[in-house]
Amino acid sequence: MIVVMRANTEQEKQDRLVDWLKSMGLGIHVSKGEFQTVLGLIGDTSKVDMDLLESLDIVESVKRVSETFKCVNRKFHPEDTVVEVGGVKVGGGHFCMIAGPCSVETEEQIVAVARAVKDAGADMLRGGAFKPRTSPYDFQGLKGEGLELLKLARAETGLPIVTEIMSAADLPLFEDVDVLQVGARNMQNFDLLKELGRTGKPVLLKRGLANTLKELLMSAEYIMASGNEQVILCERGIRTYSDYLRNTLDLAAVPMLHELSHLPVIVDPSHATGIARMVPPMAMAAAAAGADGLMIEVHNDPLHALCDGAQSLRPEEYAALAKRVRALREALA
Amino acid sequence: MIVVMRANTEQEKQDRLVDWLKSMGLGIHVSKGEFQTVLGLIGDTSKVDMDLLESLDIVESVKRVSETFKCVNRKFHPEDTVVEVGGVKVGGGHFCMIAGPCSVETEEQIVAVARAVKDAGADMLRGGAFKPRTSPYDFQGLKGEGLELLKLARAETGLPIVTEIMSAADLPLFEDVDVLQVGARNMQNFDLLKELGRTGKPVLLKRGLANTLKELLMSAEYIMASGNEQVILCERGIRTYSDYLRNTLDLAAVPMLHELSHLPVIVDPSHATGIARMVPPMAMAAAAAGADGLMIEVHNDPLHALCDGAQSLRPEEYAALAKRVRALREALA
Amino acid sequence: MIVVMRANTEQEKQDRLVDWLKSMGLGIHVSKGEFQTVLGLIGDTSKVDMDLLESLDIVESVKRVSETFKCVNRKFHPEDTVVEVGGVKVGGGHFCMIAGPCSVETEEQIVAVARAVKDAGADMLRGGAFKPRTSPYDFQGLKGEGLELLKLARAETGLPIVTEIMSAADLPLFEDVDVLQVGARNMQNFDLLKELGRTGKPVLLKRGLANTLKELLMSAEYIMASGNEQVILCERGIRTYSDYLRNTLDLAAVPMLHELSHLPVIVDPSHATGIARMVPPMAMAAAAAGADGLMIEVHNDPLHALCDGAQSLRPEEYAALAKRVRALREALA
Amino acid sequence: MIVVMRANTEQEKQDRLVDWLKSMGLGIHVSKGEFQTVLGLIGDTSKVDMDLLESLDIVESVKRVSETFKCVNRKFHPEDTVVEVGGVKVGGGHFCMIAGPCSVETEEQIVAVARAVKDAGADMLRGGAFKPRTSPYDFQGLKGEGLELLKLARAETGLPIVTEIMSAADLPLFEDVDVLQVGARNMQNFDLLKELGRTGKPVLLKRGLANTLKELLMSAEYIMASGNEQVILCERGIRTYSDYLRNTLDLAAVPMLHELSHLPVIVDPSHATGIARMVPPMAMAAAAAGADGLMIEVHNDPLHALCDGAQSLRPEEYAALAKRVRALREALA
Repeated sequence: MIVVMRANTEQEKQDRLVDWLKSMGLGIHVSKGEFQTVLGLIGDTSKVDMDLLESLDIVESVKRVSETFKCVNRKFHPEDTVVEVGGVKVGGGHFCMIAGPCSVETEEQIVAVARAVKDAGADMLRGGAFKPRTSPYDFQGLKGEGLELLKLARAETGLPIVTEIMSAADLPLFEDVDVLQVGARNMQNFDLLKELGRTGKPVLLKRGLANTLKELLMSAEYIMASGNEQVILCERGIRTYSDYLRNTLDLAAVPMLHELSHLPVIVDPSHATGIARMVPPMAMAAAAAGADGLMIEVHNDPLHALCDGAQSLRPEEYAALAKRVRALREALA
Repeated sequence: MIVVMRANTEQEKQDRLVDWLKSMGLGIHVSKGEFQTVLGLIGDTSKVDMDLLESLDIVESVKRVSETFKCVNRKFHPEDTVVEVGGVKVGGGHFCMIAGPCSVETEEQIVAVARAVKDAGADMLRGGAFKPRTSPYDFQGLKGEGLELLKLARAETGLPIVTEIMSAADLPLFEDVDVLQVGARNMQNFDLLKELGRTGKPVLLKRGLANTLKELLMSAEYIMASGNEQVILCERGIRTYSDYLRNTLDLAAVPMLHELSHLPVIVDPSHATGIARMVPPMAMAAAAAGADGLMIEVHNDPLHALCDGAQSLRPEEYAALAKRVRALREALA
Repeated sequence: MIVVMRANTEQEKQDRLVDWLKSMGLGIHVSKGEFQTVLGLIGDTSKVDMDLLESLDIVESVKRVSETFKCVNRKFHPEDTVVEVGGVKVGGGHFCMIAGPCSVETEEQIVAVARAVKDAGADMLRGGAFKPRTSPYDFQGLKGEGLELLKLARAETGLPIVTEIMSAADLPLFEDVDVLQVGARNMQNFDLLKELGRTGKPVLLKRGLANTLKELLMSAEYIMASGNEQVILCERGIRTYSDYLRNTLDLAAVPMLHELSHLPVIVDPSHATGIARMVPPMAMAAAAAGADGLMIEVHNDPLHALCDGAQSLRPEEYAALAKRVRALREALA
Repeated sequence: MIVVMRANTEQEKQDRLVDWLKSMGLGIHVSKGEFQTVLGLIGDTSKVDMDLLESLDIVESVKRVSETFKCVNRKFHPEDTVVEVGGVKVGGGHFCMIAGPCSVETEEQIVAVARAVKDAGADMLRGGAFKPRTSPYDFQGLKGEGLELLKLARAETGLPIVTEIMSAADLPLFEDVDVLQVGARNMQNFDLLKELGRTGKPVLLKRGLANTLKELLMSAEYIMASGNEQVILCERGIRTYSDYLRNTLDLAAVPMLHELSHLPVIVDPSHATGIARMVPPMAMAAAAAGADGLMIEVHNDPLHALCDGAQSLRPEEYAALAKRVRALREALA
């Protein structure tokens, strides 16, 4: 950790700061520049409160040299992590296609979509049973009943299932779910992350609306530090000033996360754009950027189908897209 | 709700959309413009999925005319809500000063700070016992023990206590806490909001890092719809591209929230800026903008005090600020 | 244009507003909902000040139904525009690779890079002669001399040249330049845009750091309304809260701009990321998203080359990337 | 400047980097930590390209210790700058009220508003003659004729005039204008800034929509480095994800700019909010935060006045606000 002192700091104040830092077991290198002095802190700085230091009147700025994340860090784990879910692999060259409806609605619906996406080459089935909704008056999902329907669809097709969990209190209901999804709004629900760390189950962790990559990795670190190494990261768009789409898909996060961490990184172009006709170009772009998989919404609801183009793709649109993604990946292999 | 159709939409497709909307019990006004047709939806549109509509190929855009929030809405509740906590009032002209340390550390510390802020004119004591931290390796708070120390400080000074709750599972520990704080990261932890709605206790709800005012109000609506009308809103800075301070304090949110809702609105300049010397000007600005109160961090830790200026104010700095805030409010009364 | 009136507006005030709007030659449809009244404005609303309307106390919100951009609008010009520059085509299925150094430095440098990128398959040469720099103390470019060196490189290789113009006063110097680039900081320098509109020369218009797609299109409209139809749009990253890369590349802008406008859209992954090793994945992603071309920085400066990896690619890295881009485009053809 | 090397960098590569830096006349301190090496660069680092360094594969991050701005820097000029305009002072304790219409429309209008704001206590008159508009089809201002009308209003009232200049080519027309305003969209139009630097006239420099404080100060540096010390900074709201107001007023910029620079800082709450009823609370907040002045839009157009509440205040609203601002400033004196 590097501490840049303000110009003209009184020597006495600086000495007291140095003494305080030494009292925490750190070694201090003092380097005097023409205008300003820089302190280099050596040793275990993980307990130093960077914000506190930066807020001191005699300190101009502070820079952490070594990241505080350990388990997720590629530096200490150079090989790609491969998450395995019922025979399906994600990461380390294994590309994973996850597809399914936004919400589980009926047995007929979820089984039909599951069959359709399996035929199109999907590896896993997604579907929301517990739904985080901005409004308390909106449909909150079928909950436990929805989980049962997902399991039926899995029994019919053999596809492992991915579904969102919103509270650790619901964990008993999720015992037989293959991948536990943490939604963007819960990315920093640390109590939930800790509990998921204790389950040992694969976790799909979505980036929060306004969270940095470092914060995403620290949230993954919460899960891993609690003993669970099966974490899949998911970029799903961030909130910006842009108003023409719901979110701004940050695809550069894919190569950047691969550089910082060994965990697999998938992309959700459906939530990132909110418009079905934008999903194929963004899915192709994500694959070209090196993502380890795609999570895409697919429905086969005739009510929606009547007007071409809800946020979800229709099964035939998904099949066409999946084919193009495979062609792209083969061309780049 | 208003639906703007795309130019050149086939009549047949438009008719199917109109039929589908009618099947939901809505009345439809069709208004043909020179280039485009506009549908006016009349009736209970709260169950219409605006995002779904907007994503249809034949729809250009959708606008909701009436807000979906009811309980928090000033339209249906024109008078200011006044939240009462152990004799202290917030809102409706009652200005509330909340102060205390970031974290509860020891009995000596919390009692000393409580006495100091009470002498300076504070109305409530804040202090963190359960701490949401980006890193799993950072101090997570004294938890239950911290709550006990807060209660001791309350017994010593008579100040009601405000402290953050991170999980509904901890509610039994908070039974004797006066105000339950929901932190920015949990603003859309809907399961937690619902549970707090059932407690009937005053809730201080902080705006999330990247949440709109409408989302903040919908989160308050979760609490109120569950039966709890004691909600205080808190602006604490939003995340922007700006890099010189931790967050950007959005003070225009104060008059805007007062226009949209009857709930009291307070401001936290400590977290919004992260630098002690920025707290007084922003606290004054918040009071001038019409806030119903201020939540400010104050410490009396000699280790921090050694270098003037952590994020927290020292007691004498707080006392000076509180005096200036009172002078400002008197001048404007 | 749709005007949503506030609930409980006095009839008299609403009548005065309607009269005022009628006095501007507009037809008005009044539609009464359960809670609120909506006015539909019919006729030429381009002169109605939407912000003024929205700021009226009796108005809740305003929505423009028809866009104010005409020349750039795909609705009125369904076929793709193809910009032609010295035999090179951009748009309408013609993919254009633009490459070259950030700044023109010496004859030797620019000719060597021009030859290298031509061998790698580039279609045009870029190079900065007039450099917009945040600091007045930074290198501002070789200016007129740099333009002469670019022409030399063009004479040697036959590649048309693209270079930035910062002020209309410099136009005489740019007479023999093939494509005039408008940088992100000047995207709303309307006086410059108007002058470029009068030149009839192809213009490469970069999106500003925090500008919406609509604002980008309105700036292109300034050029086209002044009589110049040769405009290429360029996405180059926007400013967000994200701190790990210089900007956030907004690739969904590519299909969205194609939907809204007939103009070609290229992507600049070098400025968008600022890190050489991030350029190849983002270039591939841009091609997969449907961009009409790529503008990439390439240098052959041995001083920089000594440490693998400035923002610019080395010629051999560029050649490898260009080959992969071609493979991707062939696979998707 | 501090350069943090990546872990496990080969010694040979590091040596070449050190040699290259030394060849630029810099002294280098090498400090080896447990995991990583840090280079401290000593000497004139203003010519070192920080972005280039940061993009090198062997470099993890770079931090500039001393700011590159000199003329605007409070470190080298501790006393407040006071800008004087025709007897009116701004900065150093002198609070300046600037008011007037958005656009100059007619002699009658501008003279009437000038008289009204003078009666209310305004110190200067503002009014747009050259108008930057997003759309080429919107009213672009009365231009030269508007400037003449402003001078008439000045002759009638004695108020100095402030008005926007969009292009250095128009400078001859502005010879008799008191303060030249640079709008947000032109904050980084460096050619314009340099020319204004040569005029010696007071310049009111508005912060760009998405510009950092450092960028604002560097733009002021362009003006000062060209020989003009009469610069007033203006915060007018930044673009964020927030959608309820046009911009987000960043009031913490006021104390922060005062800390970094000796230049006066004023606030424009009219453009920052876009809604007249939000102007008074934000104007009060700006004064409480320590601003050196306020620029506020005032109109007396009966057409607008018919519906209480355009973006501009009516004269009587402005007079009431000005009185409250004075009361606030007296209470805090």
